[in-house]
Amino acid sequence: MTTIDLQAMGKAAKAASYRLAALSSQEKTAALLAVAAQVEAGAEAVLAANAQDVADGRARGLSEALLDRLLLTPQRIDKLAAAVRHVAALPDPVGMEIEGRVLPNGLRLSRRRVPLGVLGVIYEARPNVTVDIAALALKTGNAVILRGGSETLRSNRALVHLIHRALEEVGLPSAAVQLIDSPDRALVRQLLRLDTYVDMIIPRGGAKLQRLCQEESTIPVILGGIGINHIYVETSADLEGALRVIENAKVQRPSVCNAVDTVLVESAVAKTFLPQLVARLRPLGVEFRADAEAMAILAGEAGVLPAEAGDFDREWLSLVLGLKVVSGLDEAIAHIRAHGTGHSEAILTNDLAHATRFVDEVDAAAVFVNASTRFNDGGQFGLGAEVAISTQKLHARGPMGPEALTTYKWIVQGKMHVRV
Amino acid sequence: MTTIDLQAMGKAAKAASYRLAALSSQEKTAALLAVAAQVEAGAEAVLAANAQDVADGRARGLSEALLDRLLLTPQRIDKLAAAVRHVAALPDPVGMEIEGRVLPNGLRLSRRRVPLGVLGVIYEARPNVTVDIAALALKTGNAVILRGGSETLRSNRALVHLIHRALEEVGLPSAAVQLIDSPDRALVRQLLRLDTYVDMIIPRGGAKLQRLCQEESTIPVILGGIGINHIYVETSADLEGALRVIENAKVQRPSVCNAVDTVLVESAVAKTFLPQLVARLRPLGVEFRADAEAMAILAGEAGVLPAEAGDFDREWLSLVLGLKVVSGLDEAIAHIRAHGTGHSEAILTNDLAHATRFVDEVDAAAVFVNASTRFNDGGQFGLGAEVAISTQKLHARGPMGPEALTTYKWIVQGKMHVRV
Repeated sequence: MTTIDLQAMGKAAKAASYRLAALSSQEKTAALLAVAAQVEAGAEAVLAANAQDVADGRARGLSEALLDRLLLTPQRIDKLAAAVRHVAALPDPVGMEIEGRVLPNGLRLSRRRVPLGVLGVIYEARPNVTVDIAALALKTGNAVILRGGSETLRSNRALVHLIHRALEEVGLPSAAVQLIDSPDRALVRQLLRLDTYVDMIIPRGGAKLQRLCQEESTIPVILGGIGINHIYVETSADLEGALRVIENAKVQRPSVCNAVDTVLVESAVAKTFLPQLVARLRPLGVEFRADAEAMAILAGEAGVLPAEAGDFDREWLSLVLGLKVVSGLDEAIAHIRAHGTGHSEAILTNDLAHATRFVDEVDAAAVFVNASTRFNDGGQFGLGAEVAISTQKLHARGPMGPEALTTYKWIVQGKMHVRV
Repeated sequence: MTTIDLQAMGKAAKAASYRLAALSSQEKTAALLAVAAQVEAGAEAVLAANAQDVADGRARGLSEALLDRLLLTPQRIDKLAAAVRHVAALPDPVGMEIEGRVLPNGLRLSRRRVPLGVLGVIYEARPNVTVDIAALALKTGNAVILRGGSETLRSNRALVHLIHRALEEVGLPSAAVQLIDSPDRALVRQLLRLDTYVDMIIPRGGAKLQRLCQEESTIPVILGGIGINHIYVETSADLEGALRVIENAKVQRPSVCNAVDTVLVESAVAKTFLPQLVARLRPLGVEFRADAEAMAILAGEAGVLPAEAGDFDREWLSLVLGLKVVSGLDEAIAHIRAHGTGHSEAILTNDLAHATRFVDEVDAAAVFVNASTRFNDGGQFGLGAEVAISTQKLHARGPMGPEALTTYKWIVQGKMHVRV
C-alpha cells in the first residue's frame, strides 16, 4: 500500500484552488475541452485498466448490477467526453455580482459569486463520477480531492492520469484534481477531518456512506441522494393519469433516488384504484408490500405481500412498491413526515385546497402536484448539470447545479470610511 | 439537577415548527409584538433573576467584563423589547418565490423560500441573545432550542418564561422556543447529535465552542465570529486616512470579531507610517506586537514588543495590534492566506490594479478597499438584523440576516406529467 499524505494533498489542493479561482471562463473552457480530448485519446488505456477492475470484481464475486456500474465501454467513454464538453458550454457562475448597491454612508457594497475552494468527493463504483465531478469542479474554479470506490481504482487512476495530461497541456497544476490512490479506508476518515484545506464534502453513495460523513466530518457535508418518496392519490385525481404517473415513478428507473417507494391511497378510492394499480404494474415486474387495509382489498392478488415492520422506512431502489390506505390528506401528510427523507413527495389530486396544503405542509426538497417524482433531477429542472440531489436544507436543497459549488464574498469599497 | 429529555424537546420543537411554518406574516408579527410587551411587563422578574445570576457570578469570581456582559438593567431590557419590535417590522423572507418558470414540457417549476425547521443555538454569557434569537426564529417561522451559558441560567429562564406567556397569548405552542434548563454540559453534546429534529446549529461564542460544534455535531453548523483580521497599507494610500481607518478598526470596539488584529505595511512606506501609527494609537491605550522589521523601525518606542511565535495567529479582542512589514502585495496576500480566518480583510491603497488583485485573491467573507473592517456587520450592510457573522462558505457567508434562517423547496405542478 502506498503512503498517502492527505495533509500534503490538501495543501496542494488549496494552493491550486487559488490559481483556479483566478481563471477566466475562457481558460476554464479550454481546460475542459482538453480534458474531453484526452479522455477520448486515452480511451484504450482506460478500457484496459477498467477491464482489470471488472475482472477483479468478477473474481471477487461482485453482483452483475455492480459490475455493470463499474464497466466502461467505448460508447460510455464517448459519453463521458461529451458530458465534459456539455459542462464546458454551460454558463460560468463564478464572478457574477449577486447584488450591488451604495450604502447611505457612501460605501459601495456588492456580493460576488466565487468558488468554494477545495471539494472532497467520496463515491462508489461508477468511474464516470471521476470525470463528471472533475469537470464540474474545474468549471466552477474549485480544486477537488477524489476518493472513488476500491473496485474502480485502476479505472479512476487511468482517468485522472488523462485529466492531469490535459491540465499540463493548458498550464494548470495537476493538484487541481487529485485522486486518493489507495483503497485504505482510514484515508476516508482523514479526508473528512481535513478542514484546514477542504471546504465541502460531497458523498455520492448509499445511506451508510452518508451517515459516516455526517458522523465523522468536521467539514460541511452535502447529504443527499437518499429518497424514501411517496405519491399520495386522492379520490378526485384523474385515476388513469395516476396509473401512468406511478408507473413512471416506479418502473422507469427503479434503482435511482427519485423513484417512488410508497403509494398512499385515499380510503374512499382505494377499492377502485388499488386493484387497477396492481394490474397495471405487476406485468412490469413490480412486487407490492401492502398495509393491512390495502391487503384486505388486494387479498389473493399474486405479488402482494403484507408490509413488514420497517418496510415503509426502506428506500427500495428496486421494483418493489409499498401500498398504504390513508383516511385523507392529514394522514398522508403525517405518514410522509414520519417516513419521508425530504427528497421527492407527490400528490395526485384535482382538489385545489388539498394541493395547496400538500405543497405548503410537506417539507421536502421537491414537492410535486400531478407529476412524477422522477422529475426531481438537475437536468430536468434545467440546471445544466447535476452535482448531487441534496436532502439537507443548508446551502442547496434538491438538485444542485454548478452554482451550488460556489459561495460569495462581500466586497466593500470606500474612501477611507470609518464606522460611527 | 433536572432530568432533561432532549429527544422529547426535539420532537416537540419539530411539531411546533410545522405550525410556525404555516403562519402568515401578520400572525408572526403579532407573536413578536406580544413577546416585546411581555418582556417589558415582566422586566421586574427578569431583573430579579438576573441580579441572582450576577451575584452568583461575582461570588464565583467572574471578571468585571463578563459580569457586565451578563448584567441586565431596565435600559437594557427596554432595548431588548425595542429590538424585538424592530425584528417584527422587518420584511418576512418566508414564502418568497425565488424563481418560477414553465419547463419545455409544460411543468410549472418554482422555488419558494421556507423556514429551516428547528434551530439549535448555543451561546455564552449574554442573556439578550435569548430574546434576540427567539425573535429571529419566530420571524422566520423556525422553532428554536436554546442553550445559554450557565452563568445566566436564571435570567434566561425568566426571559423564556415571558416568551412562553406571549406565545400562549397568541395561541402558539410553547415548544416553539425551548430552553435547555440545566447547566449540564453533556446536554450540549446531545443537542449536537439531535439530527433527527434539529436542522441547524448556531454556536455564538469563542473558538473553543466553535471547535466543539465542528467536531461533534452531526447537524450542519454555522461557524463564525472568529476574526483574525488584517489591514494592509500601501505606499500609495492616503496615509492620514489610513491612520483614521486603523484607529477605527482597532479602538472603536476592540472586543468584537470585526476589529483589526494585524496591520501589514508595505516596506517602502514603513519607516514613515509605522511611527505615525504608534504615535496615533498609543495614547488611546493600544499596545503593539511587531515583527523584526517593524521592531527595527520602532526600536525604543514604549508599548512596542517583539511579536512572539503565534502572535500573528491570535484574535486579540483587546487593544493589542500586530505590526508586520511586507515587501508588497504578494507577501501581504500570502500572510493573510496563512494567518487569516476568512472574516474581514482590508487594503488601503490608491493603486487600482492592487485593489483589484486584493479583492480577487483574498478569500474572506468580506474584503474591504479603503474602509474599516468594522463595517462587516449585518446592521451596517442593511440586513435589518444579524443572526451571526459566518466565516464558513456554505449556506451563508459574512453577516447573516433573517434570510439565512430559511431554505427553499422546489415546487413542481403538472398535468399528470411523466418523465420520458
